[in-house]
Amino acid sequence: VYNETMNMSVASDQPQFPLLSKSNPVFCCYLFWSSLLILKMLCMSLLTARQRIKTKTFANPEDLRMGRTPEVRFNDANVERMRRAHRNDLENVLPFLLMSLGYVASGPHPLTAKLLIRIGASARLLHTIVYACIPLPQPARALSFFITFGIVSFEAIYVLICAIKYI
Amino acid sequence: VYNETMNMSVASDQPQFPLLSKSNPVFCCYLFWSSLLILKMLCMSLLTARQRIKTKTFANPEDLRMGRTPEVRFNDANVERMRRAHRNDLENVLPFLLMSLGYVASGPHPLTAKLLIRIGASARLLHTIVYACIPLPQPARALSFFITFGIVSFEAIYVLICAIKYI
Amino acid sequence: VYNETMNMSVASDQPQFPLLSKSNPVFCCYLFWSSLLILKMLCMSLLTARQRIKTKTFANPEDLRMGRTPEVRFNDANVERMRRAHRNDLENVLPFLLMSLGYVASGPHPLTAKLLIRIGASARLLHTIVYACIPLPQPARALSFFITFGIVSFEAIYVLICAIKYI
Repeated sequence: VYNETMNMSVASDQPQFPLLSKSNPVFCCYLFWSSLLILKMLCMSLLTARQRIKTKTFANPEDLRMGRTPEVRFNDANVERMRRAHRNDLENVLPFLLMSLGYVASGPHPLTAKLLIRIGASARLLHTIVYACIPLPQPARALSFFITFGIVSFEAIYVLICAIKYI
Repeated sequence: VYNETMNMSVASDQPQFPLLSKSNPVFCCYLFWSSLLILKMLCMSLLTARQRIKTKTFANPEDLRMGRTPEVRFNDANVERMRRAHRNDLENVLPFLLMSLGYVASGPHPLTAKLLIRIGASARLLHTIVYACIPLPQPARALSFFITFGIVSFEAIYVLICAIKYI
Repeated sequence: VYNETMNMSVASDQPQFPLLSKSNPVFCCYLFWSSLLILKMLCMSLLTARQRIKTKTFANPEDLRMGRTPEVRFNDANVERMRRAHRNDLENVLPFLLMSLGYVASGPHPLTAKLLIRIGASARLLHTIVYACIPLPQPARALSFFITFGIVSFEAIYVLICAIKYI
């Protein structure tokens, strides 16, 4: 009985490895780009900290001695730009990472999946550059934003259709 | 030796498939509802953008030309409500998605798990409706908030107990 | 042919179980500590709510009747400290959880991986204590922040190198 089940499984078009494992090249591609995006997100904290020190804008009383400033300050334009860029990452990079994981697990076509992960992640790297590093005139930021936005939407709709009967 | 190990595994009460794979109906149920929640989170960005355009409240100088407004503005009540609803999603939907993934991986009872995922996700959809779409008097928002809050807590405690010996 | 492939797999130094499953002690360790961190993040909502009620600082008009206050208020120092601590969790705990999941999936040395997960998670628990519960003078908060920051960076670089050929 056991051998028969194995043969059936071999005969199907399903891959012979778990989709969320190192044996799946699509998952490896996801691992690479998700690590890069998380590293980029960590950099946002450092960029904000640099602006805080440069403009002496500290939000906590216990940070004042370190920065040799007399009182807490808020709403510095440079610090706030970094914080908006960082928050935008929380709102878009984290859903992209979670959704792409679900998308990879749902067994999409490998070439399509790898392409979407690469373009989606690259667009977010670009978004940070045009938002936080070298503020460019619109629609640079809007374009890079909507590329990843569109890819996450596509992945979500793909998985919704795949898993609709488990609603 | 190999065959014996396989038979032992067959005899145990463990399911015959990896828990984080398409073969597991509970994971498929998770995939469906997590995609729906992520799609909903993306909508928050659009709702905020609509309020920004409607009230001409732009936070970045480079957005002013697009909106034909003379200067940056903050603290518009309608924009801020959307941003609070969006932030509430970051604080609760993302932990719900990560925790439910760990919960599914820890092999809970399938019916319980599917029920918790369905109710938890539905309550978050409801939360957005009563917070951002049609602001309802309390305790509508508090109720929908605490349903998912309770479910995430339950899942976390369940997994903590399952995995306590790996502390 | 099938038996030969299996034997090859048995001969390699790869573990015989999927890395993202209950059979992997490293994944179980991840499950334990990620559940604890998510439970801790949920507590941030309760801490903020307690400060809001104590200082009668409500951001939504529909919350005023519940708190018996005449108007909405913002920028209370105690509430804002909790919200900054909570936002810091979103910026660091969620990337830690996602990155550690990818790190576990990439098959690191079990002892190293378990150590990094335990230290990274404990440092975030400490961060909340010195930021939100008992505000301590610096560098208490900076130290606990940079421990997890360093661990997430290490995990990201490890996975980047492992998966570099899938770029």
